[in-house]
Amino acid sequence: MGSVFKFRRRVEFPETDAAGFMHFSEYFRYMEATEHALLRSLGRSVFQRGEEGIVSFVRVHAECDFIRPLRFEEEVDVHLAVREVNEKSIVYDFKFHKLESAADVARGSITVVCILKRPDQDAVKAIEIPADLAAVLKERLR
Amino acid sequence: MGSVFKFRRRVEFPETDAAGFMHFSEYFRYMEATEHALLRSLGRSVFQRGEEGIVSFVRVHAECDFIRPLRFEEEVDVHLAVREVNEKSIVYDFKFHKLESAADVARGSITVVCILKRPDQDAVKAIEIPADLAAVLKERLR
Amino acid sequence: MGSVFKFRRRVEFPETDAAGFMHFSEYFRYMEATEHALLRSLGRSVFQRGEEGIVSFVRVHAECDFIRPLRFEEEVDVHLAVREVNEKSIVYDFKFHKLESAADVARGSITVVCILKRPDQDAVKAIEIPADLAAVLKERLR
Amino acid sequence: MGSVFKFRRRVEFPETDAAGFMHFSEYFRYMEATEHALLRSLGRSVFQRGEEGIVSFVRVHAECDFIRPLRFEEEVDVHLAVREVNEKSIVYDFKFHKLESAADVARGSITVVCILKRPDQDAVKAIEIPADLAAVLKERLR
Repeated sequence: MGSVFKFRRRVEFPETDAAGFMHFSEYFRYMEATEHALLRSLGRSVFQRGEEGIVSFVRVHAECDFIRPLRFEEEVDVHLAVREVNEKSIVYDFKFHKLESAADVARGSITVVCILKRPDQDAVKAIEIPADLAAVLKERLR
Repeated sequence: MGSVFKFRRRVEFPETDAAGFMHFSEYFRYMEATEHALLRSLGRSVFQRGEEGIVSFVRVHAECDFIRPLRFEEEVDVHLAVREVNEKSIVYDFKFHKLESAADVARGSITVVCILKRPDQDAVKAIEIPADLAAVLKERLR
Repeated sequence: MGSVFKFRRRVEFPETDAAGFMHFSEYFRYMEATEHALLRSLGRSVFQRGEEGIVSFVRVHAECDFIRPLRFEEEVDVHLAVREVNEKSIVYDFKFHKLESAADVARGSITVVCILKRPDQDAVKAIEIPADLAAVLKERLR
Repeated sequence: MGSVFKFRRRVEFPETDAAGFMHFSEYFRYMEATEHALLRSLGRSVFQRGEEGIVSFVRVHAECDFIRPLRFEEEVDVHLAVREVNEKSIVYDFKFHKLESAADVARGSITVVCILKRPDQDAVKAIEIPADLAAVLKERLR
C-alpha cells in the first residue's frame, strides 16, 4: 500500500438511520468525498474545465465491506490509497478508522473512468487521464 | 383551499434518523416531489425545454411545521394546494396526512420563482410563468 | 436466476447531482428499498419484533457496477433475485432496467446478516434466519 | 443579534442536484449541523443521557429563504444566533455567508422543543430545558 491520504469526518444526524447507525449508503459518500479531497489537495477538482470541455471522473464500480457500525457524532478517518492508475481508469482503496479504536470499521473500493463532456453534447466519452494528474497519482502507488 | 393534489409516500429507511423518526429535512423533499408530481400530472416537468433555454422553478422560500413524527414504512399522503399564482412566482401549501390517522402530521409551504436558463449562460433570470401553465394552476385556486 | 421481484422507482430531484445524473450512492438505496419491499410483500418488515427482541438484517457487503446513467424523472425497475440463503446470511442480486430501454443500467449485490437486538442492549448478535422466512426465500432460489 | 457561532462547510457532490446547485433541503441539514456543533462546543450533545432517560430536542418549525445559489465545493460559513430561550423551546436564527462574497446566500430559523424519552417508552414528552444549558444559551442572547 503506497502513500495514504486521510480525510476526517464526524457522523451527522441525517446520515444515521432508525437502527441508530450510519446508513450503509453514506460510506460510499464518505469514500467519494475523500477522493474529491485528494484531488483538491493536488490543486484540482473532480470537474476540471479544459479546452475541449469538462474533464471529470465517473464511477463504474463501488463496493464496501461493513465491519463495525458507526454512530452519531463518532469521528472516522477515511484512508485512501491509489491501487491502480490505468490509461483511462483509476482504482481507489479505502479503509475507515474510528478515532477511538484501532480496528477498521469498513473497507471499500471505487473504480472511476476519466471522461470528457463537451459543452454542446449530453453524452460523455471515456478519455485518457490527463498526463500530469496520472503522473501525480502514480507517485502515490509506491 | 382549492382543489387538492395528493401524492403518496412510504417512509424509507435512509430517510429515518437515530431518533427513530423521519428526518425533518425529508419533509421538504416530499413537498418538492409532490410539486413535481403535480407538474407531471399536467403533462409537464419542472424542467421544460423551450426555444430560449430551459424554463424551470427555483425555490426562494420553504417552511414546515412538524406536528407528529413519521416512522419507517409508515405511509403518508402529501396534499398540495396552490395558494398563489403571481406573475413570476407560485406559492404551494402542503399538509401531511398519515394514512392510519385523521390528524395532520406536518404542514408547510414552498414559494418558487419561474426562471430561464439559457444554454450558453451559467446565470438564470426570473421570467413570467408560461401563460398556459399559469392558467392551469390558477384553475386550482378556486 | 430464480423468481424475480420487481420494484419500480422514478428518479427524484435530490437524488441527482451536478453532473445531471442520479448519484451513485442512490443505487444502493434503491437496492435496499427493493429488499424491504420484498419483505413487505411477504408480510414482514426488515424489523420484526420477536419474543427476545428485534430481529433484523444488517448489511455486511454491498457492491454495484454502473453501466449507464439515470436522469431526473426516468423510471427504473429494480429486479431482485435471491442468490444465497445461508444459515445466518442472505445474498441478493439486483439489476436495474430503465423502462424505455432494453439494457441494464446497473447491476449490484448486497449481503445481509440476520441479527437480534435485545431491548436492554446496545449491541446486536448474529442469529439464524427465522425458519419460516428462510423457507420462503429458499423457494425463490429455484 | 447576540454572539454568533460559526460552522464552516464545503458543498459536497451528493448535496448538489441536476440544476448544478446545492439542493434546498441541504440548507436545513447545514442549520441542524451548526446547532449540533454549538452544543458540542458547550460540551454537550443534542442527545444527552440523563437519570430519567434521554434529553433531546425535536424540531417543531423550520424555514429558510434562499437568496443566491451554492455550487459544488464552494465554502460557506453558517452563522447561528440564539433568538429565544423559552421554558421548553429555543429559536435559532441562521445566516449563510459564502466565503468569497460579502452577501448572505440564505437566511433561516429553526424552533426546537426539549423532550424526554424514557428508555421503556416509545413516546416522548416536552420538558423544561435543563437549567445549566438554558443559562449558557441565554448568555448568547445578549
